[in-house]
Amino acid sequence: MQIKDLGEFGVIDLLSRLVIDQRAGPGNGTPFAFNLAVDSGDDTAAWSLPLSGANSSGQLDSPQLIELFTTDTMVEGVHFTRKTTPWQDLGWKSVVSNISDVASMGGVPMYALVTLGLPPNTHVSDLQSLYQGMIEASNEYGLSIVGGDMVRSPVVFITVALTGAMHGQPMVRTDARPGDLVAVSGFLGGSGGGLKLMLEMPDESGATADYLRDCHRRPLPAVGIGQALVEAEITAAMDVSDGLADDLAKLCKASGVSGKIFADQLPIHPLLKKRFPKDCVNLALGGGEDYVLLFCGQPSKINHVVSELPGGAAVVGELIAAAEGESGQVTVFDDKGKELSAYNRGWDHFGSVKK
Amino acid sequence: MQIKDLGEFGVIDLLSRLVIDQRAGPGNGTPFAFNLAVDSGDDTAAWSLPLSGANSSGQLDSPQLIELFTTDTMVEGVHFTRKTTPWQDLGWKSVVSNISDVASMGGVPMYALVTLGLPPNTHVSDLQSLYQGMIEASNEYGLSIVGGDMVRSPVVFITVALTGAMHGQPMVRTDARPGDLVAVSGFLGGSGGGLKLMLEMPDESGATADYLRDCHRRPLPAVGIGQALVEAEITAAMDVSDGLADDLAKLCKASGVSGKIFADQLPIHPLLKKRFPKDCVNLALGGGEDYVLLFCGQPSKINHVVSELPGGAAVVGELIAAAEGESGQVTVFDDKGKELSAYNRGWDHFGSVKK
Repeated sequence: MQIKDLGEFGVIDLLSRLVIDQRAGPGNGTPFAFNLAVDSGDDTAAWSLPLSGANSSGQLDSPQLIELFTTDTMVEGVHFTRKTTPWQDLGWKSVVSNISDVASMGGVPMYALVTLGLPPNTHVSDLQSLYQGMIEASNEYGLSIVGGDMVRSPVVFITVALTGAMHGQPMVRTDARPGDLVAVSGFLGGSGGGLKLMLEMPDESGATADYLRDCHRRPLPAVGIGQALVEAEITAAMDVSDGLADDLAKLCKASGVSGKIFADQLPIHPLLKKRFPKDCVNLALGGGEDYVLLFCGQPSKINHVVSELPGGAAVVGELIAAAEGESGQVTVFDDKGKELSAYNRGWDHFGSVKK
Repeated sequence: MQIKDLGEFGVIDLLSRLVIDQRAGPGNGTPFAFNLAVDSGDDTAAWSLPLSGANSSGQLDSPQLIELFTTDTMVEGVHFTRKTTPWQDLGWKSVVSNISDVASMGGVPMYALVTLGLPPNTHVSDLQSLYQGMIEASNEYGLSIVGGDMVRSPVVFITVALTGAMHGQPMVRTDARPGDLVAVSGFLGGSGGGLKLMLEMPDESGATADYLRDCHRRPLPAVGIGQALVEAEITAAMDVSDGLADDLAKLCKASGVSGKIFADQLPIHPLLKKRFPKDCVNLALGGGEDYVLLFCGQPSKINHVVSELPGGAAVVGELIAAAEGESGQVTVFDDKGKELSAYNRGWDHFGSVKK
């Protein structure tokens, strides 16, 4: 069997089970009193550190320190093309996609390692532009690039590994419950709209085109919002990187529930709606790379939190109990309450065709 | 200019300078009191963590905790072929090459993230073998694989990012001095010998062939030795991954010194010498992937430490002051004290030809 037949979920399930089942024991880190809190399958791994300062009576002066650890990769021709993502923007995006994972737990980014796979004929000036974009993102979000690896490769790939830190309880994919509302922290579909515009009308100019291209090339990770959600005691969240419908399905599967999305509640920016009136709902459902946060919780809490977030934040759905063996099902309804049967379900990394 | 013209050193210098010069400030981690101790250009980055338990008089109960962070990548056709490195061994090596970086600082491995770039027609059983090898290495050295990323790619690549931890002073590349002796912690050239054997005589059997193939496919990182070196107050070290001559040049450049290697002092295993009597010195100088530690220090200390290490550890050279602007020069001498002008100088990741 080939991995494209098993699909992304299947491959990840298989490998996660292998790793967790065959792990020799929780002995790792014992000499240093590290404690693994979030394992494979979430936006980041997380562990708690030894006491960060105990006072004379042995009590904590400061809350428990949590460290986060994530990695994300972009491959040329798969995740980007040089035509739609210039080198500098590629640098920005490769760092930001990792920051977004840290933000989705409620943390801030700390230290990054950058791995570059490069053909030997790569231009030095392009590499400088790439790093320029990475440095911009690093400075904007307060992380340090502290090393990495550079290797020859027939295809350009960029892997960033990032640590983060936080106080409090990391938000996870596994803590959603039936009856929860589902919300997002900002507008959806802009990145997909920008890509569509560049592929179909590469020379279009004007404020709308600028807005959409920026959504695709310069997404903003929700670091402050993630911290605010932890303070508001939200416990279930992830970031929207592969598309809302696909990412909600992952969260539902991790929590053992199913989900509904109400298409007429999707926060779609007026410029996206104006430029792509027919496609904007599909772009919001499956476009991906918006890097807003998707989060769930009891209705009263979610409604309150959403009302305090900036423009674009919205309740977009709800969670229901899953039928036996059927968790991770996501159904989308139109404004008349009718089920949408065909929509963009997002990104399968190994599927032979788009789902 | 293309990166192959600039060469590996040139590209790394350029990008490290960009990152460090343009970093907004040391503000990163401030809210959590992390303190960056080792930056770009060493085997791992390193930072100290907030006090791991202070007693009532404010003194440390335990020494400062240091965290380490490294990443290493293998690309098919560049770093390995499926013919000479079966999937399971590839899994072992991809984890071990990272453990070796942590060992070279004096730390123990903690948590790993695994990124796989895979063609969609990859066989699931091969992927299982790959993970089997990773799990073997993880269990052997007490680390946990806690997540990762999987992406479609036209070429197989494996990137592992690894954290480690230690007490004490991390060993670095920048702390070597003129007058230091240069030592290695074990036999050199075995991995290169194994590769040579498999390429030239793929069907050879017997104890020698088994030994050499194992050197290439199942290298052992020097975790215990690294810890022993830190305890012995060795402060300058790195691991031998690209070849002794090349790696010593990197250490010399980082410390602003030059180096001499004495070919007749190279520790070459009897089986390698027997099988490749003519090539064994070149393999020891430039074969790479031996994952022994290379370390430097004052002669009396180094002689003492080497005498207490297991078989294969040896003094192999010495450091001298570098001529103006010439640091990082490594010269190899034969048993008559004559300079070897042509030898295998190791691996340039972007050079159009082997140096």
